[in-house]
Amino acid sequence: MTVLVLTCAEDVTADLVVSALGDAGVPVLRLDPADLPGEAALSAEYVQGDFDGHLSAGGRMVSMTSLRSIWVRRPGRPAARAEHQSAWLTAESEQALYGTLNCTGVRWMNHPVAAAQARCKPWQLRVAHHSGFAVPPTLITSFPRAAREFAAQHPDLVVKPVSGAHPSDQALALPTTTVEPDTDFAGVAAGPTLLQQRVLKHADIRLTCVGDELFAARRPSEPDQVDWRFADDGGTWTPTEVPKRIARAIRAYMSIAQLAYGAFDFAEDADGTWWFLECNQGGQFGFVQLETGQPIAEAVAAWLALSTG
Amino acid sequence: MTVLVLTCAEDVTADLVVSALGDAGVPVLRLDPADLPGEAALSAEYVQGDFDGHLSAGGRMVSMTSLRSIWVRRPGRPAARAEHQSAWLTAESEQALYGTLNCTGVRWMNHPVAAAQARCKPWQLRVAHHSGFAVPPTLITSFPRAAREFAAQHPDLVVKPVSGAHPSDQALALPTTTVEPDTDFAGVAAGPTLLQQRVLKHADIRLTCVGDELFAARRPSEPDQVDWRFADDGGTWTPTEVPKRIARAIRAYMSIAQLAYGAFDFAEDADGTWWFLECNQGGQFGFVQLETGQPIAEAVAAWLALSTG
Repeated sequence: MTVLVLTCAEDVTADLVVSALGDAGVPVLRLDPADLPGEAALSAEYVQGDFDGHLSAGGRMVSMTSLRSIWVRRPGRPAARAEHQSAWLTAESEQALYGTLNCTGVRWMNHPVAAAQARCKPWQLRVAHHSGFAVPPTLITSFPRAAREFAAQHPDLVVKPVSGAHPSDQALALPTTTVEPDTDFAGVAAGPTLLQQRVLKHADIRLTCVGDELFAARRPSEPDQVDWRFADDGGTWTPTEVPKRIARAIRAYMSIAQLAYGAFDFAEDADGTWWFLECNQGGQFGFVQLETGQPIAEAVAAWLALSTG
Repeated sequence: MTVLVLTCAEDVTADLVVSALGDAGVPVLRLDPADLPGEAALSAEYVQGDFDGHLSAGGRMVSMTSLRSIWVRRPGRPAARAEHQSAWLTAESEQALYGTLNCTGVRWMNHPVAAAQARCKPWQLRVAHHSGFAVPPTLITSFPRAAREFAAQHPDLVVKPVSGAHPSDQALALPTTTVEPDTDFAGVAAGPTLLQQRVLKHADIRLTCVGDELFAARRPSEPDQVDWRFADDGGTWTPTEVPKRIARAIRAYMSIAQLAYGAFDFAEDADGTWWFLECNQGGQFGFVQLETGQPIAEAVAAWLALSTG
């Protein structure tokens, strides 16, 4: 039973997991959808109710019915390295690959349908509320007047992207920034804008959830520092305990969102409350593992290796 | 309680439904996502667990909590008519619109997550098998040898797109065509190809499912005519009865796929068997209603108007 890893060629994080699977003697097929058609190939047959398929990549061929799990790590755009590229070929290759894999019934980390929904930040906020997290008051608006009224009620605001960064276009990531007190909100009419009450935080929390396992890391923060991804203050991540209330909320969130993997970001305030900022279903864990020593890659490998049949 | 219709300005099919809703006294907000930001605007607030939002289009404003249903008919690409267009603005507007609407908990025809999955043809074939339909033997492959072996077993084949036409790019539609007996399949290595045993058909069947209502139409066909969408033989659609076995399979399919609307295409053979070809979750119904007189627009309007709260 093989683990299928969908990712690009240069992916150190995937290397960690593939190596852990190798240590455990679990066969792995690593495939970059960008190589289909080309280095990678597939075939799937539907005859009289039966379905069977094969995948080939890196000179290896596996049966789709012999897959035990699929890890969608950082896949390239289908047909991105084809000889004759086109939007049509990408659409055909994408449907052929993900569509036939979807017929296998194996476990996904994460299933593409769940992943697409989970990327949606307005939806995240609602699910976070329902799951029991504290969520800072938030407004998404293209009405300047609504932005002004919200700013009057919540004078200390940050602005951040509604959509976050799409995995296929990392360049779209923008930092969260503070809103100046005298901001003229006329500009929100030019594009829906997400405004959120700023949490006066003492620390950032990154909680990585892998199946049922939780790995929380804490990084002390100056209250003025808004987005640790763009900070250069020498702060480091250290392991921290997960409050029971948070653990329950995480399980509720993962269940509603039907995710097997999620990287949660929280802001910890002076009272020790963890405020939900977002859950990135494809979030990195390499940097946390490196600084904390938490065995996240090993947990991912163990989840992928688990046989359920 | 308002029905939200997401569609472009020129959409005669939507006009039929909007008119039926008007006759029934049901308020409608018609919004083209292409107009956001611009003619259309939105605002959504998340404060202390509560969610409330507003939408404005065509000079009208409605509360998101007062929506009774959402019809995703033929929506434009978000921000397509914005003053300063960009992929980033489209991503932000798309997430803001569909993300906040996703928080309303109202009924969708069809929910975007279900719709995305339902467009996937390899997945359709598997679900069709599970639902109890007869499905012609099918191969999706980028292995020339697999194509050759399949053609040896099933000499009378058609080739069709794996992905079908995406609603945002109708130009991608390609006709289904027959495969010549002496075809060299080396070309499938250049792109995954869908080959299917040709059904020697006596008629085409278009079955439109709206909630629990089924409307089947039949159009006699010459066995040589493969794709009625591109035919010009003067054949017309007439209403036909739905066999009980088919009705059960339709209900199973709609339930697995979580769809409220689906347009099914079948090929009827000499024995009267209906072979499943595809289910288009956004398929047109205007032409069927025009030729058969079946009140499909009225059924869509009735489904959208139904109050569940």
